[in-house]
Amino acid sequence: MAKVNVGKKILDANEKYALKNSELLAQHGKRCLNMISSPGSGKTTLLVRTISDLAGAVKIGVIEGDIQTDLDAQRIRATDAPAIQIITEGACHLSATQVHHALQELPLDKLDIIFIENVGNLVCPSAFELGEDGKIVVLSVAEGDDKPAKYPAIFAKSKVLLVNKIDLLAGGALIDFNIERVKADARRLNRSIEIFPVSAKTGEGMAAWYDWLKGQIASV
Amino acid sequence: MAKVNVGKKILDANEKYALKNSELLAQHGKRCLNMISSPGSGKTTLLVRTISDLAGAVKIGVIEGDIQTDLDAQRIRATDAPAIQIITEGACHLSATQVHHALQELPLDKLDIIFIENVGNLVCPSAFELGEDGKIVVLSVAEGDDKPAKYPAIFAKSKVLLVNKIDLLAGGALIDFNIERVKADARRLNRSIEIFPVSAKTGEGMAAWYDWLKGQIASV
Repeated sequence: MAKVNVGKKILDANEKYALKNSELLAQHGKRCLNMISSPGSGKTTLLVRTISDLAGAVKIGVIEGDIQTDLDAQRIRATDAPAIQIITEGACHLSATQVHHALQELPLDKLDIIFIENVGNLVCPSAFELGEDGKIVVLSVAEGDDKPAKYPAIFAKSKVLLVNKIDLLAGGALIDFNIERVKADARRLNRSIEIFPVSAKTGEGMAAWYDWLKGQIASV
Repeated sequence: MAKVNVGKKILDANEKYALKNSELLAQHGKRCLNMISSPGSGKTTLLVRTISDLAGAVKIGVIEGDIQTDLDAQRIRATDAPAIQIITEGACHLSATQVHHALQELPLDKLDIIFIENVGNLVCPSAFELGEDGKIVVLSVAEGDDKPAKYPAIFAKSKVLLVNKIDLLAGGALIDFNIERVKADARRLNRSIEIFPVSAKTGEGMAAWYDWLKGQIASV
């Protein structure tokens, strides 16, 4: 029982900072999206391509969450977008407190959208609100089409599902992946989830994702 | 500070059951391996193939950890191997207590090796001992070659690294994956880790993994 009570207390402290973050973002009129997935689904590659393809049209800043290393922030900075690295030193998710400090370091008034790239983990980050406007869940086709059924929480809570690495489905059919199963299972959990099949590598399908992103700014 | 203290207390309760599990397995002279990876790296497919290929030679039982659904246990049972399903209902890792109850339900004396397939999560399960003889970390080539550097804990603690889905590296070179980088980074964290590049789909490389498994039983 101690575990349950303390879990509640930690969530409350997190929620207090999530509210502060939400207020700060609203004051500046900025959108913030919290990107969540398993390790290796392609979050950083998606962000790098999105930043490059939308250069001049949408100004993006990134808060990078990693357990160790600033490899991902280095990749983002190579695009000239500002990136603040949070190293969690073992922790399995970002907290709203960490994001609060990172938000102070970003040039918010020069940005349109702030992406938070959470720690690679399909489970824990879904339980911690960071003050974002929405969650983006990324699923690589290499992970299999049973993931919405097996890891429902993040699919139930996300505004968008990016089904990434669809280039791997072309040609030799090396991967068994039924995207209709993914769509049906995700929509059973979340009637309004937007689903974009994309390849951050080839660019296939990215235009629809960009249109959705532009729509988010238009409505700020 | 409260968080740190309580974290410690939970680990201690877990460790008590981990010790009980270890003693129970030793009494029966059985090996137990705790398989950990991101979602979709192919743990269940690896187990299904291993059970089938070693049928008659090595008797395997499985404890399946999932957040929701018994899809994986169904796949194991289709091989005729006994499988006990633990549904964590949101929890991001298996606990030694859950495994303790599952061990009571397995016909231990009829088995050589008990595999625990942990919840798909490269982070949290590495912090919870279950009483196993060793951890097996699985990394799919589709996840990228930066994972040992970015998620070091599980690579530092595992006896074996199975680099799975190497069939995806053949032919069209759809995936950028430098296995030498993975080997170097993993061995920097863990000098004695055994690394087997495999494809659970095609069977490539599995013979070396089977030899290692047989060696584990021989030394009980």
